[in-house]
Amino acid sequence: MLKGIPVSEGYAVARVLKIEEVQIDYRKVTVDNPLEEISIFRQAIDQTVTQLEQLKSETEKKFDHETSKIFEAQLMIATDPEVNDAVESKIRAESCNLVYAIKYVVDRFVDLFDHLDDEYLKDRAFDLRDVTNRTIKNALNIEIVDLSHINEKVILLTTELTPSQTAQIDPNFVCGFVTEIGGKTSHSAIIARLLQIPAIVGVEHLMQKLKNHQEIILDGFHGEIITDFDDKIKQDYQNKIERYEKKKSALKTMIGKQSQSKDGHVYELFGNIASSKDINHIINFDADGIGLYRTEFLFLDHLVLPTEDEQFEEYKKVLESVYPKPVVIRTLDIGGDKHLPYLNLEKELNPFLGKRAIRLSFDHIDVFKTQLRALLRASAYGHLKIMFPMIAVKEEFIKAKAIVEEVKQALRKEKTKVADFELGIMIEIPSAALMADQLAQVVDFISIGTNDLIQYTMAADRTHQSLTYLYQPLNPAILKLIDMVAQAGKKHQIKVSVCGEMASDIYAGPLLLGLGVEELSMTPSHILKIRKILSKLNHSDLEKLSKSVLKLDNEEQVLSELKKLIKV
Amino acid sequence: MLKGIPVSEGYAVARVLKIEEVQIDYRKVTVDNPLEEISIFRQAIDQTVTQLEQLKSETEKKFDHETSKIFEAQLMIATDPEVNDAVESKIRAESCNLVYAIKYVVDRFVDLFDHLDDEYLKDRAFDLRDVTNRTIKNALNIEIVDLSHINEKVILLTTELTPSQTAQIDPNFVCGFVTEIGGKTSHSAIIARLLQIPAIVGVEHLMQKLKNHQEIILDGFHGEIITDFDDKIKQDYQNKIERYEKKKSALKTMIGKQSQSKDGHVYELFGNIASSKDINHIINFDADGIGLYRTEFLFLDHLVLPTEDEQFEEYKKVLESVYPKPVVIRTLDIGGDKHLPYLNLEKELNPFLGKRAIRLSFDHIDVFKTQLRALLRASAYGHLKIMFPMIAVKEEFIKAKAIVEEVKQALRKEKTKVADFELGIMIEIPSAALMADQLAQVVDFISIGTNDLIQYTMAADRTHQSLTYLYQPLNPAILKLIDMVAQAGKKHQIKVSVCGEMASDIYAGPLLLGLGVEELSMTPSHILKIRKILSKLNHSDLEKLSKSVLKLDNEEQVLSELKKLIKV
Repeated sequence: MLKGIPVSEGYAVARVLKIEEVQIDYRKVTVDNPLEEISIFRQAIDQTVTQLEQLKSETEKKFDHETSKIFEAQLMIATDPEVNDAVESKIRAESCNLVYAIKYVVDRFVDLFDHLDDEYLKDRAFDLRDVTNRTIKNALNIEIVDLSHINEKVILLTTELTPSQTAQIDPNFVCGFVTEIGGKTSHSAIIARLLQIPAIVGVEHLMQKLKNHQEIILDGFHGEIITDFDDKIKQDYQNKIERYEKKKSALKTMIGKQSQSKDGHVYELFGNIASSKDINHIINFDADGIGLYRTEFLFLDHLVLPTEDEQFEEYKKVLESVYPKPVVIRTLDIGGDKHLPYLNLEKELNPFLGKRAIRLSFDHIDVFKTQLRALLRASAYGHLKIMFPMIAVKEEFIKAKAIVEEVKQALRKEKTKVADFELGIMIEIPSAALMADQLAQVVDFISIGTNDLIQYTMAADRTHQSLTYLYQPLNPAILKLIDMVAQAGKKHQIKVSVCGEMASDIYAGPLLLGLGVEELSMTPSHILKIRKILSKLNHSDLEKLSKSVLKLDNEEQVLSELKKLIKV
Repeated sequence: MLKGIPVSEGYAVARVLKIEEVQIDYRKVTVDNPLEEISIFRQAIDQTVTQLEQLKSETEKKFDHETSKIFEAQLMIATDPEVNDAVESKIRAESCNLVYAIKYVVDRFVDLFDHLDDEYLKDRAFDLRDVTNRTIKNALNIEIVDLSHINEKVILLTTELTPSQTAQIDPNFVCGFVTEIGGKTSHSAIIARLLQIPAIVGVEHLMQKLKNHQEIILDGFHGEIITDFDDKIKQDYQNKIERYEKKKSALKTMIGKQSQSKDGHVYELFGNIASSKDINHIINFDADGIGLYRTEFLFLDHLVLPTEDEQFEEYKKVLESVYPKPVVIRTLDIGGDKHLPYLNLEKELNPFLGKRAIRLSFDHIDVFKTQLRALLRASAYGHLKIMFPMIAVKEEFIKAKAIVEEVKQALRKEKTKVADFELGIMIEIPSAALMADQLAQVVDFISIGTNDLIQYTMAADRTHQSLTYLYQPLNPAILKLIDMVAQAGKKHQIKVSVCGEMASDIYAGPLLLGLGVEELSMTPSHILKIRKILSKLNHSDLEKLSKSVLKLDNEEQVLSELKKLIKV
């Protein structure tokens, strides 16, 4: 059995199709005519552009417009003058072969991205390699493998599935894939979840260990690849697949229904998104609105700061697309494990306890005001709720609100329309939870960010490999803090939601609602599952249970109580 | 006016005495006879040893035995074979001058220390430079400035006051000092506080900006050096000095008295120490016991792991010296901003949220067991209370207690005497404060570490220069957590103390006692001041005030309420 990182749920039993890359000779060669080399390079780019445009239109037909945007991004990279000029200069300056020049330039960019220690940017490096490899193959007349020709059921195996390959996958034939490299937020992982096919990444020595056409079992829940099995085991997994598929289609019956308990208590189940590209998930999974739009990815996707107009267009699009449903847009949450290369942030000893989120916005007031201008301009196009991340003390909210007011006055002076909007906060720092009663008196809404709240309450870095035992969402200490916030919300009649990972857990989600949280916001694909579970529970039972678990000793005891009530 | 880091309280008005170092030529020179060079080196070391021994005995007479230990440490460095052999090898291998060889070897050690990013080890680098400079001067026949000859009132100015110079200071003549380099925990700073003379360190371009014999005013409370002043200002400061001196001697009347409120409520005021060298402060300032002995400095002082016997001797000494008063010994709190070069710890993204303290002890079980063996053996020599740092969940205490039990059984089998001792925890993580009721059922005592508790509750690195505004000891969020712990202690009848910096604050200290904390542990020199303030307050007023401030909005409001009751 091999193990990797599970990035998309599901099971698959099928034969392996290995996609092996042609070995390219990247060594430096001196060429007699660098101008001719540049001309070949330019022709290869033209070919790349033509191919990407075709892939874009094919994907749009086969999947949807949002998926095809991968190729839009790749087209931008293919024609990026910063990369192409650097390659041409290199060829000209050293009279070298284009393959070497491309490799040299790309390596430098990828190094830079890797050095930034940001998983998201590291994944973007994949796109850069994918596009430039295509150009190299075009220049060398190497045939490019076309996955859309697959016509039997297979599990794809590759060192690193390129974004363009992923987008060509037809889920009717490709019933799963495994890669040696990759992470949870890579394009491939995102697409796998979208296609709802199981996928595992980061399996060491994968390509050496498995043979082409070998039959394997893939468990996308646990990140396991089973290579050695008898007919009984195979049948077991085929049964599992059947049950899983039935469950998935059963969930579809929850579309269009209200999120409510058996005894008629109505909840709201929202979706989290990172970009307007994710709107289709909000619609497909029937979310009651967008409970968390993380704007930092808009900033991470750009090589320079996005302009006010670029931001405005993006916010407007998101607001319009789900109107009249509400959209909670969180202002820039940079710092911690996310960096913007163009902001030139100082290196910190403890980034998670450092100048993150709202603290950084106060320090880069122009960036903050630009975002607020874009948001306030977009307010005219939907139901906007602006949320400030990492509020520790009330004074920070008061200060942020004053800046919003200033921006609003400036826009009004310019005769720009600003519609009504709400101003709320993330509670993800223990001090804010402890002071929720005071905060609830001045904000319009509160959303609890459990991922960070757990990390600070336990004083344990949530990304630390050997401290995972302290990441305890159901620890009564965490539940007590959430309870304080929920009570404060009730007292001052403002809505409290939870937008951390806890919200989509089948045990924690209902528990949160029992504590008095009224809205849950989660990865859209989990909404129907939670809606279904809630429909089988009584709110009165959840309330009783929630209060009683606050007195327990530890997470284990809480989970055991929850399992008595919530049967899956 | 110049500004620096205030490291010792008080005022001084006097003329400047600049101590300027002779410029030594460190350049490499080839010598004809390296063996002769080595022989000069060895003679210079002998001279250094003689001088240090003399300084040690002089300091012992002038101050006390503990102070003289600086020279004991320097003697160890002077005769350290690791350094001396490296210098001799260098001279032999390259036929070079000893000055260059010493500089080369010392630079490498200092680099190593600096690279470790540990303020304490950086300060130890001062000692290494101090000792080797002495040896170089001896070898080059350069006269060594002797501060004990000063016979008029002066304020010393120097780039970096060496530990040996500091120890020669006679507070009857040296009424303050200022340096360009240095930190809060440097030897010079420690000695200044011990001598009770004002000192400021880290003043940029100090030596260029001030002239020898110029009259200046030094404000050790605010880290200010006033250079331009008239007679009125001078008189103001002389009055301040007088008032400050009166206050200090008035405090001496508190020695031997019980720590109690006007209405007769008795408290316990303990001292924090970092080594057996600090015992004299416990005795001089009449502490009711030792509330926190930080054992990590014993480990930081060593170049290899201290043996069980070395630890036993140290713990025994501390326990015996204050018997029958209790001593709370905290097990190793390494990680975060403190590292042990010989433990080979992994680099962490967020060390303050990483594998610190008890988490690390579980990972280095042999180191932990050795310390516990030494502690349990020492239990026979006094009133021992063992405390585990950074407990986040009850299970960690249960696990630590089981290890103690195992060590105890092993010692009993070996027929080693183990007397009674108590087992307690530090509460410095929000989850532990929130779960205090559960923890109080299993521990013998609790001590609240406010420095870390504040940092985690506010999610703000307490060493981050631009996040100091979030370090709010009096924020009601912090007070609520402390209140929970104090209530849990009362309910289960176990003692709760506070050993963070808050304890020694004239406003926060009484407030903590009002919340139900029964013991405060602090830098010993603050004990008499707190004892005096408490003697003027009614415990019933403190209780009432403490409960009422829990409902306030922010730190400012809390402080303002405190100032109404506590008049200084």
